[in-house]
Amino acid sequence: MDASVTLLLLDLVGVYFFAVSGSLLAARQRFDLVGSLLLACVAGLGGGVVRDLVLDAGPPVAFSQPLYLVPPALAVVTVYSIEASVQRFNRLLVVFDAAGLALFCVSGTLIALAAHQHPVAAVLLGVTSAVGGGILRDVIANVTPTLFDQREFYAIPAFVGAALTVVAQTAGALGGIIVVPIIALVFALRVAGRRLRWSIPLASRHVVD
Amino acid sequence: MDASVTLLLLDLVGVYFFAVSGSLLAARQRFDLVGSLLLACVAGLGGGVVRDLVLDAGPPVAFSQPLYLVPPALAVVTVYSIEASVQRFNRLLVVFDAAGLALFCVSGTLIALAAHQHPVAAVLLGVTSAVGGGILRDVIANVTPTLFDQREFYAIPAFVGAALTVVAQTAGALGGIIVVPIIALVFALRVAGRRLRWSIPLASRHVVD
Amino acid sequence: MDASVTLLLLDLVGVYFFAVSGSLLAARQRFDLVGSLLLACVAGLGGGVVRDLVLDAGPPVAFSQPLYLVPPALAVVTVYSIEASVQRFNRLLVVFDAAGLALFCVSGTLIALAAHQHPVAAVLLGVTSAVGGGILRDVIANVTPTLFDQREFYAIPAFVGAALTVVAQTAGALGGIIVVPIIALVFALRVAGRRLRWSIPLASRHVVD
Repeated sequence: MDASVTLLLLDLVGVYFFAVSGSLLAARQRFDLVGSLLLACVAGLGGGVVRDLVLDAGPPVAFSQPLYLVPPALAVVTVYSIEASVQRFNRLLVVFDAAGLALFCVSGTLIALAAHQHPVAAVLLGVTSAVGGGILRDVIANVTPTLFDQREFYAIPAFVGAALTVVAQTAGALGGIIVVPIIALVFALRVAGRRLRWSIPLASRHVVD
Repeated sequence: MDASVTLLLLDLVGVYFFAVSGSLLAARQRFDLVGSLLLACVAGLGGGVVRDLVLDAGPPVAFSQPLYLVPPALAVVTVYSIEASVQRFNRLLVVFDAAGLALFCVSGTLIALAAHQHPVAAVLLGVTSAVGGGILRDVIANVTPTLFDQREFYAIPAFVGAALTVVAQTAGALGGIIVVPIIALVFALRVAGRRLRWSIPLASRHVVD
Repeated sequence: MDASVTLLLLDLVGVYFFAVSGSLLAARQRFDLVGSLLLACVAGLGGGVVRDLVLDAGPPVAFSQPLYLVPPALAVVTVYSIEASVQRFNRLLVVFDAAGLALFCVSGTLIALAAHQHPVAAVLLGVTSAVGGGILRDVIANVTPTLFDQREFYAIPAFVGAALTVVAQTAGALGGIIVVPIIALVFALRVAGRRLRWSIPLASRHVVD
């Protein structure tokens, strides 16, 4: 399979997973169908729009390629189909969010490298794509971003995935197959970090105000 | 009248209506004069800035054309002049917001078509311009975006307006006069939808968490 | 010293001060180390990213120049080092925020002028750079932006600084030394405005809803 087709597929699948997380959050917040579709679009496409605005190479793909509207539409259909049987709502949201994070930190980094960004910028753009959609989703739905929830282990897996992608690409090892273990690792880190309640030191313990 | 002049006027009038909605929200939130001006700028200019960033054709007009600063300034003066006599505050906000929505979904779509975007991208950009300023206004003022309020009927009128604009333009029917009924229809849909409490199915009814 | 080097230094020092304000807010909100770094990046780099997106001249420097990642990292180290001894937390946040505001309204305006923007656009971009990072910081941390807090005197000092910078530059008086009193004035206006509780008229006193 062509490398650019693989990349497009990676990106679209990532959009789908994030879009489901947006639609699930809309359901929890009791937004209507239009709100569900909008939050699916924001969560699924937001990180990529920010990435493309930063790359400054024409309109973001979310606008220029209508194909990118398919995953958010499918996501809304998915959530409407499964919602009656959903018992553990938050756990499902975490799984879809983790899958989106894993796919986006890799696809965002690869897209930045393909646009001739240097390695540090590519890592930054990978992390930005990966966390951007989720932050926009949470800010717009008026909940505190997952990233700041202490029980979550969020930005570090994205950073690890983006950095490994740059290393593998520089070593010439990305034939489309090396991305699979990187994606699996990021997903595992994110889910395990939450399950095992890995924690990171607080910035402050003695704030007196 | 020249087509581009008509478009500029449409856009400026839309900025004014959205800017009034921002200034009214600032009054309700008890922000000061500077906060009122800022929220007027965010609401009036935000959707257009996002549209222009996506189009990626030089600095957004809100920055490059000082003329765009006139409507927000007028909006603040308007709100200061009328505020003592305002009894039904929310209703007024809805009317101005609806007028801005109606004008922006048309002007945003036309600007995107003029920038040689394909029809689907033009519709998306029209909707983004129309709902973008209001979302930014509400997020920055820390209230839940109108879009997610179930009693509101918000994104659908914008979508209908943008789609009709593309159809009319493609059919060669936009001589500057066809936009008037489209704008009136969007405004009517938005206001009637609220008045008649049209509702859209919730994404979920059985969330157990 | 070369003018562009002076400008780079001004900008980096501004990034550091805003980044400290972000990291201090993260400490107050009890975010973890990663949240602290992210909020430092958002506060320190956000205004500049928006400025560079508007200027539409390639990827924002925060992404293309890795040097810009040093100040946020230093800011997190600073906050972790001092936090145990911080007694008057909010006052410290205001001081760093004021220093960032003073530096950014000048550097943002100069960068816009260097990119051949006209004077009005340069003032707007200076103000946007100066208030943008703080608004993004507060929106993402889910607190009401400082800008809207009536006790604060925020956007006016930034506007004064940006306007004076344009005047001084147009008069050919900016040899790198004239910026110092402008920065000092903006800082003094911001801090004195808060200390003396200068207030601006409310947009409305009689809202009945």
